[in-house]
Amino acid sequence: MRDLSANHDLMSLNTATVRKQWRLDQIIDECARRNIRAISPWRDQVAAVGLDVVARRLREAGIRLSGYCRGGFFPAADASGLAAALQDNRVAIDEAKTLGAPCVVLVVGSLPGALQGRPAYTDLNRARHEVHDGIAATLEYARSVQMPLAIEPLHPMQAAERACINTLEQALDLCDELDPAQSGMLGVAVDIYHVWWDPKLYAQIRRAGKKRLLAYHVCDWLTPTADLLNDRGMMGDGVVELKPIRNQMEESGYAGYCEVEIFSEHWWGLPGGAVLDTCVERHKTVV
Amino acid sequence: MRDLSANHDLMSLNTATVRKQWRLDQIIDECARRNIRAISPWRDQVAAVGLDVVARRLREAGIRLSGYCRGGFFPAADASGLAAALQDNRVAIDEAKTLGAPCVVLVVGSLPGALQGRPAYTDLNRARHEVHDGIAATLEYARSVQMPLAIEPLHPMQAAERACINTLEQALDLCDELDPAQSGMLGVAVDIYHVWWDPKLYAQIRRAGKKRLLAYHVCDWLTPTADLLNDRGMMGDGVVELKPIRNQMEESGYAGYCEVEIFSEHWWGLPGGAVLDTCVERHKTVV
Repeated sequence: MRDLSANHDLMSLNTATVRKQWRLDQIIDECARRNIRAISPWRDQVAAVGLDVVARRLREAGIRLSGYCRGGFFPAADASGLAAALQDNRVAIDEAKTLGAPCVVLVVGSLPGALQGRPAYTDLNRARHEVHDGIAATLEYARSVQMPLAIEPLHPMQAAERACINTLEQALDLCDELDPAQSGMLGVAVDIYHVWWDPKLYAQIRRAGKKRLLAYHVCDWLTPTADLLNDRGMMGDGVVELKPIRNQMEESGYAGYCEVEIFSEHWWGLPGGAVLDTCVERHKTVV
Repeated sequence: MRDLSANHDLMSLNTATVRKQWRLDQIIDECARRNIRAISPWRDQVAAVGLDVVARRLREAGIRLSGYCRGGFFPAADASGLAAALQDNRVAIDEAKTLGAPCVVLVVGSLPGALQGRPAYTDLNRARHEVHDGIAATLEYARSVQMPLAIEPLHPMQAAERACINTLEQALDLCDELDPAQSGMLGVAVDIYHVWWDPKLYAQIRRAGKKRLLAYHVCDWLTPTADLLNDRGMMGDGVVELKPIRNQMEESGYAGYCEVEIFSEHWWGLPGGAVLDTCVERHKTVV
């Protein structure tokens, strides 16, 4: 197991963690100042500053990406919606290439319209088929430009609105179906917030192995949790056994960053510098 | 698939659904008035009225039980806590016998103290071992008095505080381990709120079969869901495909009640009679 205590070279910041405090160009500056070596930015944050500007600022700061957030949201109410989703995923892949991302993270989507409280249909199985077909089509393009896709299973409490892939096992079954050769172009993003509860977690991380383990996201699960989306905890403030899980990731071949991703009204309400400093300290001690 | 449209003979009311409106004796009266033929009461509601009084009122009203809520909460911080939990489960089983329940529903517990925001430990695997041992010991007593135990897998969002058994597969693995002969004394309570998202749901219901399918609970999953505990939907108001799931239950041998269990600040805020009438109407049309 890698020793994270001496420095934070292996830490990445998912930029949603401070998205309410700063624009992406400021986030890059603040990361550079603290010697945070990698980030995972969101498309809306990139768009707000400009893709080329972001690419240049990253190069100048010597900051790499641990992933790009995000592709996915494949299911749609009709054929034109499905086609639009595929086109949007191609654009996300192109942006990820420009930024030098190691992978595009896929939040695959689920019942179309559910996020707005008006699901166009309720057939979860149909959504899962549309996700299958959407990833298959996107993977073809991703292969052609050599941009790996990382399926992120989302917590079952987000199964209606955000992702109908909800366990690591389900994600890996899909990987095996669409990429049986384990080409390295299709794998998973393991976010402890979504999978920590799973009795099959360790076994499925082992099953995934080096070729499928494309990203690792950390935060913590609070007791109580006040909100289904924006009440994630800072590492060390909750009940997730972070070190054993990271140990399994690394024993299974993962050698990438630990990406801190905290959606939290609490942490969004604090000064960004204090949040980053806490992330760094916790990364050294409890991740 | 059974036809529920003509009457509500197969409906049961989990009495938590109207626990803020009425005491249990009133609930029994209101159910009798509407020809609701079965209920599943909670221990605290029974205690508030008195076990013998409840047993008598049920007999007089000709109302049966579809289950008794609840045993479980096995994990504890120390040996005396573990012993106290076992003793409490024996008492629950005795009460269930007095009331003529067909099974005791087990909400198995998880990290001790997490419900109060102060987990005594965070090792989920330890909690799962304590649940295993707790059910094994309780099953011995349950067999001796012939009271079946129904393990209820709880939604993964309740994995820290309420139950570390979170999928039907996990519950059935435990059943197979502790009761390989499928004696009928150990099975599962399938509550659609907890399992609707599971990609393996249908396959695991088939695996369970008649001997393990001891209870079936219905409500609905709302989009959005505002609260992790008390924002369940009335059947038909959410995205769960109730009829296909019930069809699978019945094709797999389930012949019991459909128990309506809705924890909801919204429905608790309405007159109890309107809630019951709505349950009956939805039971006939969308369950």
